Amino acid sequence: MRYYPAKNDLPSPHRVNLAIEEAFREYGEGRVRMPPKIYVTFEKGDFRTMPAYLPGIGIAGVKIVNVHPENPKIGLPTVMALTVVLDPATGMPEAVLNATALTDLRTGAAGAVAARHLSPKRRVVLGVVGSGRQAAAQVDAIADVLEVTEVKVWSRTPANAEAFCRRCEGLACDTVSLEKACDADVIVTTTPSRTPVIMSEWVHEGTHINAIGADAPGKEELDPALLLRSRVFVDDPEQALHSGEINVPVSMGLFTGEMISGTLGDIVCGRKKRENRDEITLFDSTGLAIQDLAIAALVMKTGDGIDLPFP
Amino acid sequence: MRYYPAKNDLPSPHRVNLAIEEAFREYGEGRVRMPPKIYVTFEKGDFRTMPAYLPGIGIAGVKIVNVHPENPKIGLPTVMALTVVLDPATGMPEAVLNATALTDLRTGAAGAVAARHLSPKRRVVLGVVGSGRQAAAQVDAIADVLEVTEVKVWSRTPANAEAFCRRCEGLACDTVSLEKACDADVIVTTTPSRTPVIMSEWVHEGTHINAIGADAPGKEELDPALLLRSRVFVDDPEQALHSGEINVPVSMGLFTGEMISGTLGDIVCGRKKRENRDEITLFDSTGLAIQDLAIAALVMKTGDGIDLPFP
Repeated sequence: MRYYPAKNDLPSPHRVNLAIEEAFREYGEGRVRMPPKIYVTFEKGDFRTMPAYLPGIGIAGVKIVNVHPENPKIGLPTVMALTVVLDPATGMPEAVLNATALTDLRTGAAGAVAARHLSPKRRVVLGVVGSGRQAAAQVDAIADVLEVTEVKVWSRTPANAEAFCRRCEGLACDTVSLEKACDADVIVTTTPSRTPVIMSEWVHEGTHINAIGADAPGKEELDPALLLRSRVFVDDPEQALHSGEINVPVSMGLFTGEMISGTLGDIVCGRKKRENRDEITLFDSTGLAIQDLAIAALVMKTGDGIDLPFP
Repeated sequence: MRYYPAKNDLPSPHRVNLAIEEAFREYGEGRVRMPPKIYVTFEKGDFRTMPAYLPGIGIAGVKIVNVHPENPKIGLPTVMALTVVLDPATGMPEAVLNATALTDLRTGAAGAVAARHLSPKRRVVLGVVGSGRQAAAQVDAIADVLEVTEVKVWSRTPANAEAFCRRCEGLACDTVSLEKACDADVIVTTTPSRTPVIMSEWVHEGTHINAIGADAPGKEELDPALLLRSRVFVDDPEQALHSGEINVPVSMGLFTGEMISGTLGDIVCGRKKRENRDEITLFDSTGLAIQDLAIAALVMKTGDGIDLPFP
């Protein structure tokens, strides 16, 4: 068994995007075994347990990830994660990976896969709402699959947006108002909001939106009217209904499971697609265990590991 | 974060029994957060993911454990396990433990806690059905809480029963027929059977039974008529109905959830007990994540760990 710190030897966005697309293809073909993630709550946060098995890729295991919003006050990340990888043939643990940075990368890659398939343009202005680690991961991953001519970023804290632009290497980046950030070809939303921050009237026809921030019951970033104008795709219907962008509108009776147009797996497999240049498409990402295992498999191929005695 | 190989520095049965009893007390008082374990199936086995949080003990985490019955053919254990421990205050991973031996110990300890509270005698003849690792763990744990005057062991493979007796240090141990093994004060069953091996007529009044082997849908070791003669206690009703000794009788309509007399937590908290010397009591063990966390906490206090870089 090996431990992979996975910190300074991370795979490139290009390799991660390919691996994540393959995982969604396996999902779309109905070849993965993945129960919904399980939540356990703490006083100041929660942790989620995410098991899965991808027979086509020959990997199985579990990601364990916390969300503690007050952690930054004591200098710790809000989200930290470990992935345990098992050998499907014997069940023996093969690897434990620090999955904190990998979680950002694999979520960014899902956004890139969605944007590649759903954006009607190859050259795009990218609107970024929120300026944390996931905002950066989305930009890096999308820039691998689309030509990003401009990044327009908004943060509740303007200094964070400015810092974000300074880190946006090789891309034209501007800090803008929230409304201006929505005047874009592709929008990514990465806030922890529990009330809509993106109003429907700010978003023009033909836009593709990656709704990333909502990943627990009660979280939402988008005006429900925007959902009703959009073709909504999800990573996994059960998880999305429980904790994705659609969870609050569903609980209020404004949206239903039947209104989901399909999954990212359907799109990757070619069963579903954008139907015209003018419609708004929306990818509701909750994060799947299969993404964590796909990126773990990449790291295990090339990353530096520490041998641990087992069994 | 530290990795604990947990192989040559295992806690004593006495310390484990105390820790497991404390975990069941927390459960009985309604103070634990523990979703049911989740199963993912492989071609030749499965793995189970078991998250929990024990606020009273200040520990949270997940055990990941496989069952691959064909592993011994290639020199590997059927069951191997890792436990990941998180700091409840921050969600940060604190430890990863090799939980293979710990799984045996904590299951043995649940049997000891049940036998201590439910056996009407303090000096007992112990009947052991099956002679694998779990049989040994039950004997070690029970010998800490009751005076075991004799161990009578049966195995489908007589040589295994003989080897078992040779390893039974300090206890009188004999290999016997299956029926004779059931002529005992306390019986523990630890086989992987999918059809009843213990007939009701072999078990006399006043016996306490630990039914350990059935831990997945379709497994059973006891004649359903024996269940109907017994007061049945479980570790967790939801898990027991799904995968414990009662799962097959329940699926056949021979037993129902309403017929469960209580949990081991109820017993430890004093809300439920054996009502007279003549009744047969039965503890249906499926194995709880809180047991894995309680023993992990013990090992983290005194075991040897290897420092790993995180985050």
